[in-house]
Amino acid sequence: MADLPSFAPIPAALPATVPFVGPEEMARGRGRDFTVRLGANELTLPPSPAVAEAIRRGAAEARWYPDSAAHDLRVALAAHFGYAPEEVMVGEGIDGLLGLVARLFLAPGQVAVTSLGAYPTFNYHVVGHGARLETVPYRGDREDPEALAARARETGARLVYLSNPDNPMGSWVSHAAVDTLAQAVPDDCLVLLDEAYAEFHTDADAVTPRGYRRPNVMRLRTFSKAYGLAGMRVGCAIGHPELVAGFDRIRNHFGVTRLSQIAALAALGDAEHLAGVVERVAAGRARLAAIAEANGLVPLLSATNFVTMDCGRDGDHARAVLRELLARDVFARMPGPAPLDRCIRIATGTEAELDVVAETLPEALRAVG
Amino acid sequence: MADLPSFAPIPAALPATVPFVGPEEMARGRGRDFTVRLGANELTLPPSPAVAEAIRRGAAEARWYPDSAAHDLRVALAAHFGYAPEEVMVGEGIDGLLGLVARLFLAPGQVAVTSLGAYPTFNYHVVGHGARLETVPYRGDREDPEALAARARETGARLVYLSNPDNPMGSWVSHAAVDTLAQAVPDDCLVLLDEAYAEFHTDADAVTPRGYRRPNVMRLRTFSKAYGLAGMRVGCAIGHPELVAGFDRIRNHFGVTRLSQIAALAALGDAEHLAGVVERVAAGRARLAAIAEANGLVPLLSATNFVTMDCGRDGDHARAVLRELLARDVFARMPGPAPLDRCIRIATGTEAELDVVAETLPEALRAVG
Repeated sequence: MADLPSFAPIPAALPATVPFVGPEEMARGRGRDFTVRLGANELTLPPSPAVAEAIRRGAAEARWYPDSAAHDLRVALAAHFGYAPEEVMVGEGIDGLLGLVARLFLAPGQVAVTSLGAYPTFNYHVVGHGARLETVPYRGDREDPEALAARARETGARLVYLSNPDNPMGSWVSHAAVDTLAQAVPDDCLVLLDEAYAEFHTDADAVTPRGYRRPNVMRLRTFSKAYGLAGMRVGCAIGHPELVAGFDRIRNHFGVTRLSQIAALAALGDAEHLAGVVERVAAGRARLAAIAEANGLVPLLSATNFVTMDCGRDGDHARAVLRELLARDVFARMPGPAPLDRCIRIATGTEAELDVVAETLPEALRAVG
Repeated sequence: MADLPSFAPIPAALPATVPFVGPEEMARGRGRDFTVRLGANELTLPPSPAVAEAIRRGAAEARWYPDSAAHDLRVALAAHFGYAPEEVMVGEGIDGLLGLVARLFLAPGQVAVTSLGAYPTFNYHVVGHGARLETVPYRGDREDPEALAARARETGARLVYLSNPDNPMGSWVSHAAVDTLAQAVPDDCLVLLDEAYAEFHTDADAVTPRGYRRPNVMRLRTFSKAYGLAGMRVGCAIGHPELVAGFDRIRNHFGVTRLSQIAALAALGDAEHLAGVVERVAAGRARLAAIAEANGLVPLLSATNFVTMDCGRDGDHARAVLRELLARDVFARMPGPAPLDRCIRIATGTEAELDVVAETLPEALRAVG
């Protein structure tokens, strides 16, 4: 003994990748906090008073392990989305569920297909389980279901990832296109439909119908966006009962905290608050679009709580704009690969937060020249 | 397409095992809540007022993603246990960390060694990653470090699990025995030292020294027991910086909730409350031991917040006693395999909770006959 034990081959071959460096890490790195935090697509509006009250009351229950079945929340989510409880699995946010899905469906060397520039945490988990990632380009700033299906067929993929609406572009595809994708992928391939932003939809054709069922489609939903509970780590997967039951073989059964379950249940119960959030987010999008236009940037249409703005030149230019925003204490982000990287991405915030954006963006652009 | 996508080979071969059926699930199954909940070794005492207040204040931060580095908590834990922050990784309770450790160190088919009857969640994660479990028997109701080391050498094990103090027996081994184990395992083998109950220690010789370092030892600590935060899912792994850094390759970076980090930090800061808890738990152990003796059972010495009671006959008898306790709405548990299964296990609770135990245990024993 005495030497350092080695990692198993798959983790040994992995880089020490972090899908995202969080704003706290960034702030520590630069020695200064941000003024506004609009880079992680969090909801900056206060949560429902019912949620705040549920958390306050729930503090007394922090001593008890969580309900491993998340029964009450699972039943409520099933009713909310039009499914049986057996079709729903509560998990530690979409991030946690993405890890479980990769582990459940991908053997080492098998293929998952996604769009080049789509959510990096999906990629992180795919590669983390020794599987292989295949990407297809966005088409007109949208994910391209036909190209995803074609690549899946070419590569014999076991998993195809599509987010609708999309992050980081804010765009969307029709539900009909998703349904066609599900029919066009090869045998033995799961379509993973990430609906993190679905509450913000702006086009009824893009909405997954209540109770939508295909054996090879799994939907993912979260409380991190419209429900304003990013810090609580709660989401759910919706799919065929046999697939959903598979999570029980590998998940951390007591992993969703007791307070998270309590908070999510309260959030789900306050439909009126959600409606108000969606309305305020729509107004925030309109204001962000106006700010972009006033500065000569092109705001992309968005069905999310952020607006992606085309800076009109190449990635180096947009990266410089982002750098200047960060230097002025505005936390924003941008897509990674070209051609998406001609854009920056800013979440809708409160009026006061958007005032800061309105003030800072021209300064940042002026600094870049 | 159209058929159900298949699972990858490793999860496909797994049973739909649940390491523990939680008390909520049990209560739903029988259609009635428990009167006292002393089966999951939770701390039934109220948490530190500082924790309750931190959670209440933290509710407003639920909208922000957690700090992915859990920086403040990590720094505080490092100082608390005598390490550098790079030697500490915060995770979603010991359960979550056990899953990451299994994934990080065990390739499919490799061997992990544990004691027959020790913590089932370790076994769950080992098998869940396609690795092979080897067990050695307890010896005199204690884990047997020499036998663990011998089996590890025989099987070329990559991982050895030891909890000190032990669950489910409440027993312990000396730190010297742990240190000898670390030197006796084969090359390229990690000793995973689960110290979930370490705050309750009763024997200074069993305590891992502050800042104890061996390259092939990883310690696990939790906020679920003495700190009374089982519902919040926070723990940490302590080990060589290169091993600790390995978690960053595979963990869910934003997985420890924001409120969990806040609550844990507040708990760690209230040493006075912890001291009071440890004192009350010691009194609870003494009372549980007296209750056992008054009923003709033999309480095992315990360095934890539970007392394991030898019912003096075989597993069928102890299972019948447990069944009668459950039927009388007392949630308790018992070890699984023989010969440990001659015992039942009851956590220390409040005076009122132990009153219920004192009243119910004789009834349960009478019912068994």
